[in-house]
Amino acid sequence: MSHFCYDATEIRFMPHVVLLPYSTEEVSKIMKIAYSLDIPVTPQGGRTGLSGGALPVQGGLVLSLLKMNRIIEIDVKNMQVVVEPGVIAADLQESLKKHNLFFPPDPSSTVESTLGGNVAENAGYTRAVKYGVTRDYVLGLEAVLPDGQIINVGGRTVKNVTGYDLVALLIGSEGTLAVVTKIICKLLPKPAIRKTCIIYLNDLGAAADLVVDFFGAGNLPSAVEFMDNMSINSVADYLPRLGSLMRREAAALILVEIDGNHEAAIDSEARRIMSLCEGHSGIVDAKLAENDEQAEQLWRIRRETLPALKAKGKDHLEADVVVPRYQLPFLVRSIQESIEGKTVKVATFGHAGDGNLHVTIQYLRGNFSELEEAHELLGEIYRKTIEMGGKLTGEHGVGITAKDYMTIQMTPVEIDLMKRVKYAFDPKGLLNPEKIFPDDND
Amino acid sequence: MSHFCYDATEIRFMPHVVLLPYSTEEVSKIMKIAYSLDIPVTPQGGRTGLSGGALPVQGGLVLSLLKMNRIIEIDVKNMQVVVEPGVIAADLQESLKKHNLFFPPDPSSTVESTLGGNVAENAGYTRAVKYGVTRDYVLGLEAVLPDGQIINVGGRTVKNVTGYDLVALLIGSEGTLAVVTKIICKLLPKPAIRKTCIIYLNDLGAAADLVVDFFGAGNLPSAVEFMDNMSINSVADYLPRLGSLMRREAAALILVEIDGNHEAAIDSEARRIMSLCEGHSGIVDAKLAENDEQAEQLWRIRRETLPALKAKGKDHLEADVVVPRYQLPFLVRSIQESIEGKTVKVATFGHAGDGNLHVTIQYLRGNFSELEEAHELLGEIYRKTIEMGGKLTGEHGVGITAKDYMTIQMTPVEIDLMKRVKYAFDPKGLLNPEKIFPDDND
Repeated sequence: MSHFCYDATEIRFMPHVVLLPYSTEEVSKIMKIAYSLDIPVTPQGGRTGLSGGALPVQGGLVLSLLKMNRIIEIDVKNMQVVVEPGVIAADLQESLKKHNLFFPPDPSSTVESTLGGNVAENAGYTRAVKYGVTRDYVLGLEAVLPDGQIINVGGRTVKNVTGYDLVALLIGSEGTLAVVTKIICKLLPKPAIRKTCIIYLNDLGAAADLVVDFFGAGNLPSAVEFMDNMSINSVADYLPRLGSLMRREAAALILVEIDGNHEAAIDSEARRIMSLCEGHSGIVDAKLAENDEQAEQLWRIRRETLPALKAKGKDHLEADVVVPRYQLPFLVRSIQESIEGKTVKVATFGHAGDGNLHVTIQYLRGNFSELEEAHELLGEIYRKTIEMGGKLTGEHGVGITAKDYMTIQMTPVEIDLMKRVKYAFDPKGLLNPEKIFPDDND
Repeated sequence: MSHFCYDATEIRFMPHVVLLPYSTEEVSKIMKIAYSLDIPVTPQGGRTGLSGGALPVQGGLVLSLLKMNRIIEIDVKNMQVVVEPGVIAADLQESLKKHNLFFPPDPSSTVESTLGGNVAENAGYTRAVKYGVTRDYVLGLEAVLPDGQIINVGGRTVKNVTGYDLVALLIGSEGTLAVVTKIICKLLPKPAIRKTCIIYLNDLGAAADLVVDFFGAGNLPSAVEFMDNMSINSVADYLPRLGSLMRREAAALILVEIDGNHEAAIDSEARRIMSLCEGHSGIVDAKLAENDEQAEQLWRIRRETLPALKAKGKDHLEADVVVPRYQLPFLVRSIQESIEGKTVKVATFGHAGDGNLHVTIQYLRGNFSELEEAHELLGEIYRKTIEMGGKLTGEHGVGITAKDYMTIQMTPVEIDLMKRVKYAFDPKGLLNPEKIFPDDND
């Protein structure tokens, strides 16, 4: 039980029962019994979620899908794969390698997160700017409704407009509408070549312009990542061996990856990006990785950001806000202005190509004034985001951590409409309760 | 009124009233009044639909969005555009050219179809195999609910997982859930170069293998189109000037387009495709367009297929079935076997890269035995499609033409779930009635 009560938020709720079914039929039987006895059910995958979406807030039954972990079929001719929800993302990637196929959605949590969890959260990842999110690769789902009935939505075709798009509705519904028991995914041919550039800038506005200029020049990079000064320095402290690749004085780091199949085309695109940097204002340093090994080192800087920040030993509040792409560095600047004179620290990093910013507020929980400052700041960040045309969450989900802020993004009419959709699937409100929707005030 | 009673199916239903609002507020007022008086409302765009989705089956009020046709904003920095639903697809394409931007969804009906209609049907197009469908480019919608309340879903961010994906739910809902009044779309940098190859084959199985081999070799063509022998011959009759490009004896034509920004990369991909053809079984002829003018001629063959078939002067029944990519030529073969010994004729063509086949049954309506044969055949085609793991419609929608076949694709549980979703939006059932769902038998 002590394994199934927490996720990556480190928040804990103890379930009353944990069940690990092996088949759709078992899931269906469990759901029928729970429904008839009014027992709340919380579906769970790899528990790598950052919004508490898989936590059994009301106790009740945790339905862990970890034992439903078969890759059922790799259909090379149709470039599709059929998997159970408990398959680990990295295991799927590994099994596709020998077919030279590629499932683009590959979250940072790839060695632990399950496909079912990635579907539930509509997980993003670094290459979403070119390849789109999880939803863009799911063609069909088998799922069990709260009352135990089994449905199939979508299927093995890349296009399908027969009736409502319940596939897309289930994806990102955070396990509140149905329990996904089978997933049919589209695959792509694997790009043969990748190149990575790292760019340090001394000004956030210059970083915004540079990102826009990449796209304006006709490039479609496979990743455009961002780190602020505090993130850069945290990684420099955490991974001293990468010191020669770090510029501690920089206000921003931009990591750009391009991919494709033709060596000369990739070389020319890389040259175009580097020459864009040469003529650009605010550049501290710009470097193209000389080989795959160096590219991997550059990627480590970005991937180890969250562990590096956690190594500071502080308590964390995290946000996953998203704004129109050009606004991202200005949101960062605005957040930095907000913390002037405060005790809490803030690091920001994320997917600049998507406008998706991960914000980590570092504070000491035991210190009440810091705790209060941290929560005030979180609210302020959400409000600034909405003012800039942004949204509360780009890829982590609302879960329990962002639900109290839903009313600053959505009108009562919009929230009520979503509740009616929830009711269409789950009239008793038993499936993954107390997620997404703000608590009623009355 | 005689303009608003038909669409591209040539089926007619006369409305009682046609209103052409200029603003969201006017749409909201109209909907409030209609709701309070229980008047059915059918939203309408360019009336190019092929499933009757915009026809006022119960009469009542036609809400034509043709006057809401402003391109509100082209946001070059964020590569987004905000449009009203009455904007003609081709007009949007034209206005983006000077910014070197590209809105991939470009249906064959581009000079008449509206963005609102394309959103309502989740329209496909020839380049969907590489670029995805309409849904993949819509970030946000403003819409009016059946009771007149205005909602905004999604927004100006490329990622967003705040709550349920109501954007995706509205897209392809065929105007049955809400009236879309504003559309925020994502744009891409425009690829600079396109090359087109035409390939004739003497065998449908060979065509299936060739398409699979294109992708297997790591290519991601921007279009892979298909025409059967009857479609080829109809175009050869209709456009005799293109005779030198036609092979009347071929069982199948495959048109392949590749696109990108780097001349050498595109050349090398084109060579790879042509050399794949050289070694392949069943090839009658394979040719790479020598220049843009010839590429345009090759595309005319495909684009003029439906007009060429209509020029035969017969009545038509059309289907828009979709199967897993590799199955498409086998579905064609199976359909051809079904019509042996029958009087009616069938032509098939479509998007081979997507497995999406347009079937045109040609018959004489006045001849009762032909009429009966045609309808029997349509049912058989739908059943064969479902048996092959396919779906009733890939891009035209269910509307009224396919709704009677919904029960062969979906279980009563699945249909009932969709009805509950419809009820969540439209409890009175007044918005675009009698679409999608099969008529109740009781």
